[in-house]
Amino acid sequence: MPDHFQLLKTDTATAARRGRLQTRHGVIETPIFMPVGTQGTVKSLTPAHLREIGSQIILGNTYHLNLRPTSELIKELGGLHAFMGWSGPILTDSGGFQVFSLAKLRKMHDDGVEFQSHLDGKKLFLGPREVMTIQQNLGSDIAMVIDECPPWPCDRDATAEACARSLRWAVKCKEIATDNGFLAAGHHVFAIVQGSTYDDLRREAAESLAALDFPGYAVGGVSVGEPEPEMLKQVGATTPFMPVDKPRYTMGLGTPPQLLKMVALGVDMFDCVLPSRVARNGLVFTPDGPMNLKNEKYRADPRPISEEINNYTTQFSRAYLRHLTVAGEILACTLCTLHNLHFYLDLMAQARAHIEAGDYGTWYRAWVERYETGAAAR
Amino acid sequence: MPDHFQLLKTDTATAARRGRLQTRHGVIETPIFMPVGTQGTVKSLTPAHLREIGSQIILGNTYHLNLRPTSELIKELGGLHAFMGWSGPILTDSGGFQVFSLAKLRKMHDDGVEFQSHLDGKKLFLGPREVMTIQQNLGSDIAMVIDECPPWPCDRDATAEACARSLRWAVKCKEIATDNGFLAAGHHVFAIVQGSTYDDLRREAAESLAALDFPGYAVGGVSVGEPEPEMLKQVGATTPFMPVDKPRYTMGLGTPPQLLKMVALGVDMFDCVLPSRVARNGLVFTPDGPMNLKNEKYRADPRPISEEINNYTTQFSRAYLRHLTVAGEILACTLCTLHNLHFYLDLMAQARAHIEAGDYGTWYRAWVERYETGAAAR
Repeated sequence: MPDHFQLLKTDTATAARRGRLQTRHGVIETPIFMPVGTQGTVKSLTPAHLREIGSQIILGNTYHLNLRPTSELIKELGGLHAFMGWSGPILTDSGGFQVFSLAKLRKMHDDGVEFQSHLDGKKLFLGPREVMTIQQNLGSDIAMVIDECPPWPCDRDATAEACARSLRWAVKCKEIATDNGFLAAGHHVFAIVQGSTYDDLRREAAESLAALDFPGYAVGGVSVGEPEPEMLKQVGATTPFMPVDKPRYTMGLGTPPQLLKMVALGVDMFDCVLPSRVARNGLVFTPDGPMNLKNEKYRADPRPISEEINNYTTQFSRAYLRHLTVAGEILACTLCTLHNLHFYLDLMAQARAHIEAGDYGTWYRAWVERYETGAAAR
Repeated sequence: MPDHFQLLKTDTATAARRGRLQTRHGVIETPIFMPVGTQGTVKSLTPAHLREIGSQIILGNTYHLNLRPTSELIKELGGLHAFMGWSGPILTDSGGFQVFSLAKLRKMHDDGVEFQSHLDGKKLFLGPREVMTIQQNLGSDIAMVIDECPPWPCDRDATAEACARSLRWAVKCKEIATDNGFLAAGHHVFAIVQGSTYDDLRREAAESLAALDFPGYAVGGVSVGEPEPEMLKQVGATTPFMPVDKPRYTMGLGTPPQLLKMVALGVDMFDCVLPSRVARNGLVFTPDGPMNLKNEKYRADPRPISEEINNYTTQFSRAYLRHLTVAGEILACTLCTLHNLHFYLDLMAQARAHIEAGDYGTWYRAWVERYETGAAAR
């Protein structure tokens, strides 16, 4: 057992796991959801709000922070934790995914990818050397390797090539993090398993990366446009070949039911912009499904978003939240974001409790059933 | 002495006053600044933030709330306090000022003003009956009479006519608030003194309204485009003729030095959108003057906005706040608004302390001198 991750319990009816991950900025109880703080802020929330709703770890985006205000400036100001006033753990992605989704004029090279900034067209380059330096500048507790994320769908040859390149880059990232003392100082580096829809390529990638003994592993290449069954199939085709004694993370996912389904497949960590992004449009989560606060039927509704949920936002009526949303008030973003992220964090807390209690399988299926047939959306 | 207002101390070197105003939702220590919550929210702040920065009373705008979500709906949901989750005192304006500044196709009648909503063009009417009903629906602790606010400049005849109409409307408002039990229930109604730049008309208006024994009095018709010396002259021409034993309020003003200068003229209460509005554009207040966080010189500045001020925002560096502002992040609005409103509230707390200590005159002149010659803006 590596000493940074303790596997406290594994469910018998599902592959769900209850774990504890040690980082330089504290312990994370898994399964866990990580709010996304793209530009050095979880949009519309203060660090005090993040604490209040039980955030254990947040995510920062290397691509964005490197463009603005730059990782060098953040390093000069004491690292990302000090810069944004968040003293808990931070995971940063490598920026590779955004190079593929946001940047212009990409050109692949053996040692990285050349691209133009989506902000000002400036020519930039990200490879293993660059992403590890940037994440070291940021002071990430968990840094991600750079990888090549195949689109969906993707033919087998291109996928195999992306896997091969991703493996070479992962090797290089680990070398760099070993040589410069990043790993020895207690920072973690997670590898990313690609393979698109090809089970054998996913297995091969997982096993090759497992042999390199990274502190953690992610399932990459999901949430790139594929339908949910395909996404779950890919996660399910990957986790069995990831090391049992390391934390597992699926990147960029998903809806509340998807999170529970992936916990059942043995995933420990999640991040997703969905709860905060939809919040800014007045969509909030309830145990009976999503609720669109802009709906006229909430105009005079004195009830909270949900009677079963207790957070700062649920002290207000649906009518008030609808008013703020319709009036375009900033407070609507803040209150709905706070609610949705608390909903996700609380869902993971419930999942942890049910894994501990040994009834995760029956609990999560009932939860999903209620959510998916719920009355809130009607 | 009326029992809702205690005049604790009057400065000897200036006309500054230290007072205490009792409302249905608690006591207000004066002089005081009232953050403006136009649409049922002080933009970008939660009620918890408002408490945290020491807000004693906030302001709501009748014109806006009556258009959306309507005062009837707010009444149905328990009044404005319950609707927006603010348990402290609330002052509401009459909506008259916005009819003149925002609405279209105004037509004056003896019993009120006809206009079109700036939101959807809907035809509406506001007169004494309507504004008192709306403010009763909202549950205002301090309701304002409807008045006619002359533009600047305004000729003498038109000003005299506006004063006469405002006086008739004030009489009517008080009758209504007496007949329907609003005043007896402990709600206050404040009258508004107009008169534009004509000292004798202001005196006449102040004395006529004083005779009607309102619970409080406001100086109206300032902050309508006139230069600062003219504004201060008008306030100074009004306060000496307002009752000594009632709270005095100047509407819609002003900069930090203006507030201190008006306290010296014997004003007790202020409201202004300036601190929250400029905050959303990255302008923050310091004892050395306003600071534009968008300025390139703050790019790597590790210092807080001010070393002398302690609020949630001053834990962050200028560099971080600049980054949020430049990146267009919502958190920039929240943090800068929190800072600016705290700055105003803290300034009033300092003013109260110096009135109590008996050195208000020397203190406020030194404060204004430093602010106006300060280095922050350079």
